[in-house]
Amino acid sequence: MRLLKENKYDDDRFFEEYSRFPRSAEGLPAAGEWPELRKRLPDFRGRRVLDIGCGFGWHCLYAAEQGAARVLGTDISEKMLQVARDKNRFPAIIDYQLAAMEDLNFPDGSFDVVISSLAFHYTPDFKLLSRQIATWLTPGGHFVFSVEHPVFTAAGGQDWLYDDQGQIQCWPVDNYFQEGPRQTVFLGQPVVKYHRTLTSYLESLLTAGFIIRDLVEPQPDASLLARVPGLTDELRRPMMLIVAAQNK
Amino acid sequence: MRLLKENKYDDDRFFEEYSRFPRSAEGLPAAGEWPELRKRLPDFRGRRVLDIGCGFGWHCLYAAEQGAARVLGTDISEKMLQVARDKNRFPAIIDYQLAAMEDLNFPDGSFDVVISSLAFHYTPDFKLLSRQIATWLTPGGHFVFSVEHPVFTAAGGQDWLYDDQGQIQCWPVDNYFQEGPRQTVFLGQPVVKYHRTLTSYLESLLTAGFIIRDLVEPQPDASLLARVPGLTDELRRPMMLIVAAQNK
Repeated sequence: MRLLKENKYDDDRFFEEYSRFPRSAEGLPAAGEWPELRKRLPDFRGRRVLDIGCGFGWHCLYAAEQGAARVLGTDISEKMLQVARDKNRFPAIIDYQLAAMEDLNFPDGSFDVVISSLAFHYTPDFKLLSRQIATWLTPGGHFVFSVEHPVFTAAGGQDWLYDDQGQIQCWPVDNYFQEGPRQTVFLGQPVVKYHRTLTSYLESLLTAGFIIRDLVEPQPDASLLARVPGLTDELRRPMMLIVAAQNK
Repeated sequence: MRLLKENKYDDDRFFEEYSRFPRSAEGLPAAGEWPELRKRLPDFRGRRVLDIGCGFGWHCLYAAEQGAARVLGTDISEKMLQVARDKNRFPAIIDYQLAAMEDLNFPDGSFDVVISSLAFHYTPDFKLLSRQIATWLTPGGHFVFSVEHPVFTAAGGQDWLYDDQGQIQCWPVDNYFQEGPRQTVFLGQPVVKYHRTLTSYLESLLTAGFIIRDLVEPQPDASLLARVPGLTDELRRPMMLIVAAQNK
């Protein structure tokens, strides 16, 4: 079991599976949590933006579209970044850098905004990363991210509990206060994710000097619920957490 | 099913059961979350304090011991308040008032600190109560409370899921985004509690103008874990949430 800097996204099969995801192929409108995340993003005009775990670069493109002065997207996967570079309609504004988030290092005050979408459950040390991000940001700078919800990551199986008839019985929560790696299955392949409590996420931010501006557990919106069969199950447990913080 | 202002604590049998609880009989040291709650309480010296759902008045006594100028404890249960009055060693400082929390009403800026221990899961409208508390508090006033964790209240059964051998399998989460009443069982009797999402608790506070100072999911401390058999199960799911907020 590789605990550190696992780079599943450069595995050919995994990458191919991931690329077929609607959110990968179609971008932000296909991501269920995007309306809630977008609402919490700050004004990008003239800002220097860092996107940690940028993947295909959809959020970097959005920041550039919204008038960001500079955008740096970082990711551990060369394959992901290759796609992001191919899609880059703002080559004068957006740069992409191959790097594990644990290896990032910037001078103090390098960015006005740091964003991250569903990446931090891959790092073993969010506390350290929060402290670093606080220094990379200017005073008053914004830090907005989504992450898998602690309720979603706690037990580790990342699946419902089913009854004898194969119907969903409930979402199992277990080992909640036991933080650390979980051997999960994602797109049919084993992937290590890190479970942390809600307390831990927020304490890391507060200790690093951030103010908590907002915290949201996104749920599918009503129009989507009416259209997509089975999506109502998403109302039975929280899957993601969006946090908007601001540097002091 | 009585939804509003249920007053289970004046039921003779329920009250008797509740009175036998270690936390009822022995007070704060017997409450597992007390060390974490105490850490988040503000300086009480010279402050005017409101304790909503004060029960036997343990927190009111603590505030008075810590130098509060005035303490008002409110509760819906006359039986609870009778015990609180009997224990009142600070009659010049602490007053008790019989009132459902939905009926409380105070002039603006009446208090410097509002506290509440495990009471808000009994009210159907925390959003309204948050707005009211913000007005009752002075600018910069503190609002610190504990409440049953949304993970604990979601499914409603408030019990573990057991396997065929009667062993704990996991904690079931269900209907998380379906806020509202839950017919639960507490001390062997049916009690209505209100489930709200974490998002809902925090949005209510933020909308009312509070700053989120801290958020903690308390867990039993190590010494207790070593001593009390079965207590390690408490590490498998969060049961309570402590929030420290401050009025703008």
